[in-house]
Amino acid sequence: MKYSEMSKLELQNTKQEVLSAYNKFKARGLSLDMSRGKPSQEQIMAAIGILDTLNSKTGHISESKINCLNYGNMDGLPECKQLFAEILDVPAEKIFVAGNSSLNLMFDYILQCYALGAAENAKPWKEQGPVKFICPVPGYDRHFGIAEYLGIDMITVPMTDTGPDMNEVERLAKDSLVKGIFCVPKFSNPTGVTYSDEIVKRLAKMEAAEDFRIIWDNAYCVHHLKGKDDKLIDILEECEKAGNPSRAIIFSSSSKISFSGAGVAVFAANKENYEFLKKRYVKQTIGFDKANQLRHVRYFKDINGVNKHMDILADIVTPKFEVVISNFEKELSHLGIANWTNPNGGYFISLNVLPGTAKRVYELCKEAGVTLTNCGATYPYGKDPKDENIRIAPTFPSIEELADATGLLIISTKLAAIEKYLEKMED
Amino acid sequence: MKYSEMSKLELQNTKQEVLSAYNKFKARGLSLDMSRGKPSQEQIMAAIGILDTLNSKTGHISESKINCLNYGNMDGLPECKQLFAEILDVPAEKIFVAGNSSLNLMFDYILQCYALGAAENAKPWKEQGPVKFICPVPGYDRHFGIAEYLGIDMITVPMTDTGPDMNEVERLAKDSLVKGIFCVPKFSNPTGVTYSDEIVKRLAKMEAAEDFRIIWDNAYCVHHLKGKDDKLIDILEECEKAGNPSRAIIFSSSSKISFSGAGVAVFAANKENYEFLKKRYVKQTIGFDKANQLRHVRYFKDINGVNKHMDILADIVTPKFEVVISNFEKELSHLGIANWTNPNGGYFISLNVLPGTAKRVYELCKEAGVTLTNCGATYPYGKDPKDENIRIAPTFPSIEELADATGLLIISTKLAAIEKYLEKMED
Repeated sequence: MKYSEMSKLELQNTKQEVLSAYNKFKARGLSLDMSRGKPSQEQIMAAIGILDTLNSKTGHISESKINCLNYGNMDGLPECKQLFAEILDVPAEKIFVAGNSSLNLMFDYILQCYALGAAENAKPWKEQGPVKFICPVPGYDRHFGIAEYLGIDMITVPMTDTGPDMNEVERLAKDSLVKGIFCVPKFSNPTGVTYSDEIVKRLAKMEAAEDFRIIWDNAYCVHHLKGKDDKLIDILEECEKAGNPSRAIIFSSSSKISFSGAGVAVFAANKENYEFLKKRYVKQTIGFDKANQLRHVRYFKDINGVNKHMDILADIVTPKFEVVISNFEKELSHLGIANWTNPNGGYFISLNVLPGTAKRVYELCKEAGVTLTNCGATYPYGKDPKDENIRIAPTFPSIEELADATGLLIISTKLAAIEKYLEKMED
Repeated sequence: MKYSEMSKLELQNTKQEVLSAYNKFKARGLSLDMSRGKPSQEQIMAAIGILDTLNSKTGHISESKINCLNYGNMDGLPECKQLFAEILDVPAEKIFVAGNSSLNLMFDYILQCYALGAAENAKPWKEQGPVKFICPVPGYDRHFGIAEYLGIDMITVPMTDTGPDMNEVERLAKDSLVKGIFCVPKFSNPTGVTYSDEIVKRLAKMEAAEDFRIIWDNAYCVHHLKGKDDKLIDILEECEKAGNPSRAIIFSSSSKISFSGAGVAVFAANKENYEFLKKRYVKQTIGFDKANQLRHVRYFKDINGVNKHMDILADIVTPKFEVVISNFEKELSHLGIANWTNPNGGYFISLNVLPGTAKRVYELCKEAGVTLTNCGATYPYGKDPKDENIRIAPTFPSIEELADATGLLIISTKLAAIEKYLEKMED
């Protein structure tokens, strides 16, 4: 029976049951963390062989004859460009291989456009007025963090099952002070949605300022779950075709292929953006860590190596998604108080609880020992207007821990919903 | 006999001799590079054991219990902070351990001050008017590159044997649009000078804008030559004492201790600057590569490990400095057409040839197969007003190659000087 159809008495009785279950959980003194999209130790160990590909006996000269322990070669080992070209399915000459963090590349890029301009002789965004970014929501908190840090206004647009609401995006982008959009186009953070071909094409084609930029954070490009996958078309090619060749920049990394924080990050761009950014990087750094690029190239070799590895990771990660989702289905689907995503890949499940109860669910979980992603984190400024979205990151805990944490989350979701309904009845 | 004292006939005869020697060199078809401060393969191999400290069998958890292959720990492994605290002789809590490039940290920092402000609520430099930087010359081309890229005006100040001409620096710093100074305070690039205690104290004390910043690039902090060393006092402490605690930021790296491009970079700052920058880095990146930090800590352990290693490097590098300097002494000291530095450490020898001939010397060397650092590189905008300074980087070539290259450089220095004297006689 749906909670919304229950009488006050039925709700009060249910509350007693749920509260008793909650207190039992609390008494167990759990301490679990589902807050961040962190790989588990098992995932890390699956890639540990990467460390063995470079040591004092292996030599440190790449096949392309580059000394990976000395200066030089600003835009990365050619072999590493090739590897990421295959991973991202874009031509190798568009790939710039950098350090360990694609977030860092995005921050650098947005700061570049904001403070210095998006192209040669382009007026810095900052000097054009109060500039704005389109933020599909729910979205990635670290994207919003960059915009907030720089004082770029954020305008939210709802995510649909095929990408952001494009009517709304197209309407907003006509404003010349709207300078960009954050996109996680494949297995989106946190909804798991992959942008449809139509949405990619509309983003490429739509009317927008000359220096409007699509921050195409393809973080989960090869991160499918077992037996599932989605297909994403190439934004750079679509922008080219649409006559807006400099509109998009792709960012990605191996943070969730190899090691988080010790992986390799890249961007991909058309020739104009590539040369424009390379010109800055030549001033900005003595070059990126080629030793780590070499390790990755020697280990994975090519896309087949990556795909094999991602199948191994899918075997590890998929049961974790399943335990969360199957428990949600069993315990929540008949109550009418929550819905959730069931993605084909990526790192997250997006749970919507009864509007107005997400914060309460977070607190209930926290009190009983389970840390969720901060409430509101999936919205700009940390403010979820409906107070309903909770991002679940199932990769880090063990399956047993996840089963426990999901159990608590379900109980908390129920309890918060009952409290809300009872509160409404009081009014 | 000094060239300046020679008659026209004597000069013409000497020219024939020198030209004949030059042509013999040219005929050998050499191809040598003394242009960049790059370590040699021998230096790299001396540190190669670093690579063996982290592999699939060693474990990847630091002594401080941090998983070095997963996210977290923004400002570096505590052990790595401690290591660099000992290297730089500053307290560990002031050390922020970052990526692979201290130049990148300097670029980020200067861009921060320029576009966003040097402190909370500080007005960005850019919005204050046409801001300027003091550049001791000859200096480091990559520093000048940052200022030029951002459009910060550069004002040169001559280097003395104990640091920059402080009367001039103090005079300039009074202008509130003068926002900083670039310093390589120990074994300065390219002169090899180490700043005296008095100069460090005057920099800390002098009158300057509240948001004036000393970019203290201590790149060669432990890089002594064999049996030699210099002592540098702590700028952060001096600034603290002088009541200007936020004035200086120290930058350094292991690029020339371990591997160039695959080392570890740090900054050191007082609490206010540290927290201010950490707040940005939390938005800018998911964290830096802790795996490489762990390798360095496991290999060097502490300052004793570093010092032992730097003694090994000094044994490799010192004979290279000696072959250049002894040949200069033998061949040039009696001619009155050049002077050079004889540093106690660092990576460079600074050669001043007869004013107005540096470019010609560069061209003569280039034509005969030896690449020197671009002429003018040691001055802002690549413009050496006296056309006299040549930076020599003796570390990369072998001793035999260096002997050859130095021979050619000496001949070219002579030839260019003779040409210049003869040209003057024509006037």
